[in-house]
Amino acid sequence: MDKAIPPWETISELIAAKNSVALTSFINALSPSETARSISRLTEKEQLRLLSMLSPEDAADVIEDISEVQAADLVEDMPSEQAAAIMEELSSDHLVDVLGEMDDDASEAILAKMDKEDAREARMFLEYAPDCAGGLMISEFLVYHTNDTIQDVLTDLQANRSEYSDYHVQYFYVVDQEHKLAGVLRIHDLLFPSHETRLSKIMLTSPLCVPDKASLIELQVFFEEHHLFGVPVVDDAKRLVGVVLPDAIEEAVNKRKTKTFLRLSGIIGGEEFRTMPLLSRSGRRLSWLSMNIVLNIIAASIIALYQDTLAAAITLAVFLPMVSDMSGCSGNQAVAVSMRELSLGLVRPKELIWVLAKEVKVGIINGIILGSILCGVAYAWQGNAWLGIVVGSALAANTLVSVTLGGILPLILKRFKLDPALVSGPLLTTVTDMCGFFFVLSFASLVLPKLVNV
Amino acid sequence: MDKAIPPWETISELIAAKNSVALTSFINALSPSETARSISRLTEKEQLRLLSMLSPEDAADVIEDISEVQAADLVEDMPSEQAAAIMEELSSDHLVDVLGEMDDDASEAILAKMDKEDAREARMFLEYAPDCAGGLMISEFLVYHTNDTIQDVLTDLQANRSEYSDYHVQYFYVVDQEHKLAGVLRIHDLLFPSHETRLSKIMLTSPLCVPDKASLIELQVFFEEHHLFGVPVVDDAKRLVGVVLPDAIEEAVNKRKTKTFLRLSGIIGGEEFRTMPLLSRSGRRLSWLSMNIVLNIIAASIIALYQDTLAAAITLAVFLPMVSDMSGCSGNQAVAVSMRELSLGLVRPKELIWVLAKEVKVGIINGIILGSILCGVAYAWQGNAWLGIVVGSALAANTLVSVTLGGILPLILKRFKLDPALVSGPLLTTVTDMCGFFFVLSFASLVLPKLVNV
Repeated sequence: MDKAIPPWETISELIAAKNSVALTSFINALSPSETARSISRLTEKEQLRLLSMLSPEDAADVIEDISEVQAADLVEDMPSEQAAAIMEELSSDHLVDVLGEMDDDASEAILAKMDKEDAREARMFLEYAPDCAGGLMISEFLVYHTNDTIQDVLTDLQANRSEYSDYHVQYFYVVDQEHKLAGVLRIHDLLFPSHETRLSKIMLTSPLCVPDKASLIELQVFFEEHHLFGVPVVDDAKRLVGVVLPDAIEEAVNKRKTKTFLRLSGIIGGEEFRTMPLLSRSGRRLSWLSMNIVLNIIAASIIALYQDTLAAAITLAVFLPMVSDMSGCSGNQAVAVSMRELSLGLVRPKELIWVLAKEVKVGIINGIILGSILCGVAYAWQGNAWLGIVVGSALAANTLVSVTLGGILPLILKRFKLDPALVSGPLLTTVTDMCGFFFVLSFASLVLPKLVNV
Repeated sequence: MDKAIPPWETISELIAAKNSVALTSFINALSPSETARSISRLTEKEQLRLLSMLSPEDAADVIEDISEVQAADLVEDMPSEQAAAIMEELSSDHLVDVLGEMDDDASEAILAKMDKEDAREARMFLEYAPDCAGGLMISEFLVYHTNDTIQDVLTDLQANRSEYSDYHVQYFYVVDQEHKLAGVLRIHDLLFPSHETRLSKIMLTSPLCVPDKASLIELQVFFEEHHLFGVPVVDDAKRLVGVVLPDAIEEAVNKRKTKTFLRLSGIIGGEEFRTMPLLSRSGRRLSWLSMNIVLNIIAASIIALYQDTLAAAITLAVFLPMVSDMSGCSGNQAVAVSMRELSLGLVRPKELIWVLAKEVKVGIINGIILGSILCGVAYAWQGNAWLGIVVGSALAANTLVSVTLGGILPLILKRFKLDPALVSGPLLTTVTDMCGFFFVLSFASLVLPKLVNV
């Protein structure tokens, strides 16, 4: 298995040999994740040639398997006719996700070459923020008129069977002449009444629906409260514009979590894949690191202020990074708990006092325990009890500061509409470093004569 | 709004007043997240009294709104008859999730008091790992026999309408006498043929299915390849045992992400909520921190080795934490990219060399740039070019080490079946701290005479 030729090498060869038929059947046999991995190992030129050698349908399948960022990069580099032909084959939500990753000029160029009706629909979807109901809805659902009969529905279902096979048909939506949402039907409801019955007679009137501007959190709450298989989305005039499925909500929450995770780790400005150009990967990472260097200078300047104390008791230098690192870890734990509770709605940004009360207690207990351990370690290592007391009490004090700050920081940032994932880490590290250095060195300067004979 | 009485105070009062009727209607009017937040603010005693004052159905609704960990804690403390009555009202997946969080004795005590058939089913579900098809499937689906006619199905649907309203009825499953999966039907398929037709005539035979032991990743790949609304799960004898819905997969992936995020932040051993008892919160955080203290001691001992160098050029102390912190940040970025690519299947644990090649380049570029910045800062600050060269080149070297190590560490850990989320952070920090201290102090010792007159 390991010795087998990797699929991307076969793909490369088929591209070079211009063998479209073999290429198509080889690509179709790969699983979506194998496709994604293989595409990512090709050069950009090969990727473009590959897509132009496949039929638009097969190229669209490839586009659906790779990440939206990668797909957008690739499609932008194609002639717009070819791009439009492929994009028309994507499902409405994929299409909008990929177009949404491009700049406006590029997406407009492609839309201009697309089928008018598809383009009109895509433009409507693109006007919505990606995380609201309008951005998460699909256009593949079944809609009938109040005057239609059951027979009309059955005839339509029979006639368009293959097209509808991918549709979400748990519910049928019923609209009036102005396309306003009038009712909803479950497919069961068609099984029993006579075929001449009008839908208006059997539909559930005033069905649950969500406004097109409903936020992701509102939609999450909606599906928590109502265990439905989809919800119709209406615009300000109550016209039916789409359907949101619960999967789409889970997927959007998933994406948000990924973003949080990456931002917490210092990957900002969108996802990074190792197949992206070296300089853009390096540059994006640097943009965050260079902000961090400034914060680090601020924190380290505390040490510069106490240089004489440190020079007099050089052993302290061993404990400076220990105190600041350990407190940083304690603070990160509190940040994670707060971010989790915020995202679950278990705590609100205004409930600072409640969180403070909860974290102060943990900070005190963990501070005393960790401080005592470090005190013991320092005494055992260097044989000076005062040194132990200085670094132990510094760690205890700094643990209290960092746990408390870590607990409330995400709430404060959220209240000021800043992203906790982006700002909590660097801010917390800077403060815990500064305080850690300050506690160790200022406590030491108080008992300096006891330390210098170390 | 802010001045309004928080819902949990009203709940407390109603509990104290023993007013079940008012309590029931008040709780029913809350949204799931309001319920969760309110429950978390009550004392444990109040929580137990609340559940005993509600009907089992309403108590089950409350249990579904709170986290599984909280629910399990609460249910464990109840008399087992009462717990069983509530648990019987939960949907099969919720029931198993909550029972799965309890220890075996506690869950067995409750199962013993439950309806025999429900208990048998729950025991079967509990035997599966939570992240495999058997652990993710539901038992609320529609199943008929090959000999049934369309009329039999319609009669059953009509008779059990209210019970089935929550069911996943995009597909009907058809089994033979031995309960082996024989076919699948879409509800449309019932609309057209005569009512006397046997299901075996119209069903799709040999339908797609997954084994009950299929892993989460296999299920993800399955739903990527097949855009279905659910897949039947079969045991080793090909008997139909449940149905897995795509939402369940997204939800399980979501849970896994949460766990990764928490572990990366040092919250291990399951979720922490601030409503948990203080000592268990504090203790669980300490268990991770105390491992970290050991790693910190190892890293800091490098400084102790070079104490004389540091004493001779005390200014270096300012730059020690800067170099190690900055490199830690660079390494974390690489860890995040690797973990993301691993989870998307874009990179395999064995592709160390490929990742290494990609990260070395970023490490060199970012190392040179960050090193030059720090060199400039150090020279401007302390007026000593040699100091700038020492700390700048130490940061450059350490950035290269940490970026490269950060990139490959998750792959190595994964290969040795260790959890990258748990181990990458502490291991990376220790190594980057050690190397950072070593580079600064060993480079400094090479040019010490140039530094001492600072």
